[in-house]
Amino acid sequence: MEQKEIWLHSLQTVTPQEGYELAIKLSRMGVKSIQPDMEVLKKLRPEYANNTTGLTMASHVIAVNFQTVSAANNYWK
Amino acid sequence: MEQKEIWLHSLQTVTPQEGYELAIKLSRMGVKSIQPDMEVLKKLRPEYANNTTGLTMASHVIAVNFQTVSAANNYWK
Amino acid sequence: MEQKEIWLHSLQTVTPQEGYELAIKLSRMGVKSIQPDMEVLKKLRPEYANNTTGLTMASHVIAVNFQTVSAANNYWK
Amino acid sequence: MEQKEIWLHSLQTVTPQEGYELAIKLSRMGVKSIQPDMEVLKKLRPEYANNTTGLTMASHVIAVNFQTVSAANNYWK
Amino acid sequence: MEQKEIWLHSLQTVTPQEGYELAIKLSRMGVKSIQPDMEVLKKLRPEYANNTTGLTMASHVIAVNFQTVSAANNYWK
Amino acid sequence: MEQKEIWLHSLQTVTPQEGYELAIKLSRMGVKSIQPDMEVLKKLRPEYANNTTGLTMASHVIAVNFQTVSAANNYWK
Repeated sequence: MEQKEIWLHSLQTVTPQEGYELAIKLSRMGVKSIQPDMEVLKKLRPEYANNTTGLTMASHVIAVNFQTVSAANNYWK
Repeated sequence: MEQKEIWLHSLQTVTPQEGYELAIKLSRMGVKSIQPDMEVLKKLRPEYANNTTGLTMASHVIAVNFQTVSAANNYWK
Repeated sequence: MEQKEIWLHSLQTVTPQEGYELAIKLSRMGVKSIQPDMEVLKKLRPEYANNTTGLTMASHVIAVNFQTVSAANNYWK
Repeated sequence: MEQKEIWLHSLQTVTPQEGYELAIKLSRMGVKSIQPDMEVLKKLRPEYANNTTGLTMASHVIAVNFQTVSAANNYWK
Repeated sequence: MEQKEIWLHSLQTVTPQEGYELAIKLSRMGVKSIQPDMEVLKKLRPEYANNTTGLTMASHVIAVNFQTVSAANNYWK
Repeated sequence: MEQKEIWLHSLQTVTPQEGYELAIKLSRMGVKSIQPDMEVLKKLRPEYANNTTGLTMASHVIAVNFQTVSAANNYWK
């Protein structure tokens, strides 16, 4: 992260679905924080997008982040 | 997600069982967000539906999402 | 789930142990939601019931669901 | 579970350490709910007690159950 | 655990870092509850301390325990 | 940890993104608490930074720590 870009302004979203999309983004940023090289990430993509273990693991991370975002929005009640 | 479809309107459900079904849906949407190609997903299905590790991992993701949905509904008290 | 059966009426239970049993049921229903064929599930059973990784993973899912059920019952205080 | 034995009376404990022991018990009961045959469990024991992945996974399940027990005791404040 | 030693007096700590250290201790005690033989544990150590999967799994368990300790300290606010 | 360095002063951060960065730091400190030798860690890095399972597992740990940090900051509401 040389030039710091602001990618996370707020955990609040207008709708639950936008909250889910933010959870996906948070999950991706976790991966990018360790492997920032987008070329490497693109090469790795088929490895887990065509593999049920990889897909389930990714869905798990999104679920954990969605817990955080949902709590931050008081579950959009 | 070319044409944005609204698939998540609310985390509130009338009954706990509908909440559980929403948790299943959230888990599936996590997978679809990474692998949107339904043909690929159908091909992968037998791989984890006939494998205890895959089934237990999937049940785990549903459990995490069910935590979120249950809290959003104040546990249907 | 052709004919919808109501298997989850409430997260409230009288005792903590009944809550634990509900957590087991929730974990099983997660598996059944993906693999509804009981014959397949019976065939897979020995695979994880005789394998420590499978048993620990299953205990993990129960633990997550037990968190939900415990919170729903205000920890039976 | 033929003759029902009451093994979980309460999530409340006097001390945090007793709470931790209860978390261990909850983790074991998850395993026993799937594999109730103690002979099988004894045979499987060396498999994970001498293997770092198995030990870490087991510690993880205890940690999840300890979250539940700690919340149930208001963190023994 | 023949002679019971009190190793967990309280979940409250003065600083967040001490809380993190307590989370590490809780994670280790989970492992020790299953494999109390320190000689075995020492022999197993290189296996996971030199292996990224083992290290990440261990960091995960610490993170779960740190959630508990942080909540117990009202996040040291 | 011979000479104790204070690396965790507070769970409170000004912005959500700083909170995410703290979650990354907490995840790394978990790894360092087990393997403090930075030379070993550098050698291991390519192993998981070029491997989808390792990257997803790491993102998972960050997600768990981000839950803690987010709660500590009342979700920066």
